Amino acid sequence: MSRNSTLSSDDRKDALAEVQELRMKIRAGEWREATSGVGNGVMQANVVILPKEWADDFLIYCQNNPISCPLLAVSKPGSCLLEQLGANIDIRSDIPEYNIYRDGSLSDTTSDISSLWQEDWVTFALGCSFSFEQLLQRSGLGLRNIEEKKNVSMYRTNIETKQSHRFYGNTVVSMRPFTASDAIRAIQITARLPKAHGAPIHLGDPALIGINNITQPDYGDAVTIYPDELPVFWACGVTPQVAIENAKPPIAITHVPGKMLLTDWLIDDMLEF
Amino acid sequence: MSRNSTLSSDDRKDALAEVQELRMKIRAGEWREATSGVGNGVMQANVVILPKEWADDFLIYCQNNPISCPLLAVSKPGSCLLEQLGANIDIRSDIPEYNIYRDGSLSDTTSDISSLWQEDWVTFALGCSFSFEQLLQRSGLGLRNIEEKKNVSMYRTNIETKQSHRFYGNTVVSMRPFTASDAIRAIQITARLPKAHGAPIHLGDPALIGINNITQPDYGDAVTIYPDELPVFWACGVTPQVAIENAKPPIAITHVPGKMLLTDWLIDDMLEF
Repeated sequence: MSRNSTLSSDDRKDALAEVQELRMKIRAGEWREATSGVGNGVMQANVVILPKEWADDFLIYCQNNPISCPLLAVSKPGSCLLEQLGANIDIRSDIPEYNIYRDGSLSDTTSDISSLWQEDWVTFALGCSFSFEQLLQRSGLGLRNIEEKKNVSMYRTNIETKQSHRFYGNTVVSMRPFTASDAIRAIQITARLPKAHGAPIHLGDPALIGINNITQPDYGDAVTIYPDELPVFWACGVTPQVAIENAKPPIAITHVPGKMLLTDWLIDDMLEF
Repeated sequence: MSRNSTLSSDDRKDALAEVQELRMKIRAGEWREATSGVGNGVMQANVVILPKEWADDFLIYCQNNPISCPLLAVSKPGSCLLEQLGANIDIRSDIPEYNIYRDGSLSDTTSDISSLWQEDWVTFALGCSFSFEQLLQRSGLGLRNIEEKKNVSMYRTNIETKQSHRFYGNTVVSMRPFTASDAIRAIQITARLPKAHGAPIHLGDPALIGINNITQPDYGDAVTIYPDELPVFWACGVTPQVAIENAKPPIAITHVPGKMLLTDWLIDDMLEF
């Protein structure tokens, strides 16, 4: 538990009860939506599942790129559990929707991968920016994607990641619009949560990071940006999906962008300074 | 001393020796330049001197506006010392250049106010953004005003301060251009030094805070802003000079914008988190 945590044990119990209930709904196939704004202050995670033969290179890829790929946990090969992140997580069914990549191409989406499971699969969980959205809301900042009931906007950029053998590619970012003064506060607030990508990596002119049309996200939904607002860009855990397109493993499973694994880790326990 | 300070006692001695030597040069009239980039990591201060009758209102003005007017010290009435900020400071001669306001109008500038000194004068010292410039440089950020050997650019804005009786007016800001990623780092770094205005209050479009021509600062010099840079705006301790124009005390003395009082306080001792 972080020395910065101010959660009471009742708050803690309530948050865990809520996330476990929601995860059971997801497991039962009763929730297939994006998870922005849900889960009462828990860390949400991006997920990448790869055959063992590909896992070591990918682990180094995460270590090379800690801002876009902040590693929370790695499973034992073949294990469908992620005990570190929650005692009862079953990685085969506890994500609202999965992307299935074959030879680097997205071939299908599904809400359960039990029938595909292989004994050599390794699961990686990476922190997600949805985790800090509640911190921003607590500070009075409005989140356009939540206000407009949309998935967050995500874009491919021209910012190269650091290659690890077969894994390489450009960084994907999530974008939230803010007025300048709110952007300045958002930077200070999100810097406290490095395991959820920390401070933004860009703000202002999207073209400077290779985004040519801000109204057409590559993943998720477009949201309104008002004239007095700046788009603020955080590194995103969808970055590995670009690296998988390039590495072309025979099979790879990820979450569908915006539809995350809800963990039992409370963000209040993970705050820096 | 801040628990965050990492200064060795040798560093500390060197910094104090350097600032005291520089202050003696200023006292002797041998230095009348802007003080950006000088003083080895010491807190620089804005200065306002007012007759006692006006001082209480101004003290509340500072308390009402702690971002633009972060109060470091207040003198006893009639005292030309500021012992809290440096044992040998003589406020009548230790600033490179003074502005003299009469009835709210700038009437003169001078390098020594000894001949004007009144027994009812109270001196206020407010933190200055020059104090965090060395922190930014240590982190590898370039400061255009120092690179171009110019005074920092300062602008009147449309951001109202909180009035205290006769003192009111809009906020003055200092501006430093940065790329977006450097601006994001500058926000995190300067947030650690609230006594030097802390994090910026605006970035990006100057018109949103009432600055219609960024190439024509109201105080200091214009600096180059490259196409991939954003102007980043910090609240500035010249704000009281606008409030003095409005309050119209019979006499008020300030520093000339950019020509600051160098104190014995080391910024490393004042860092938050």
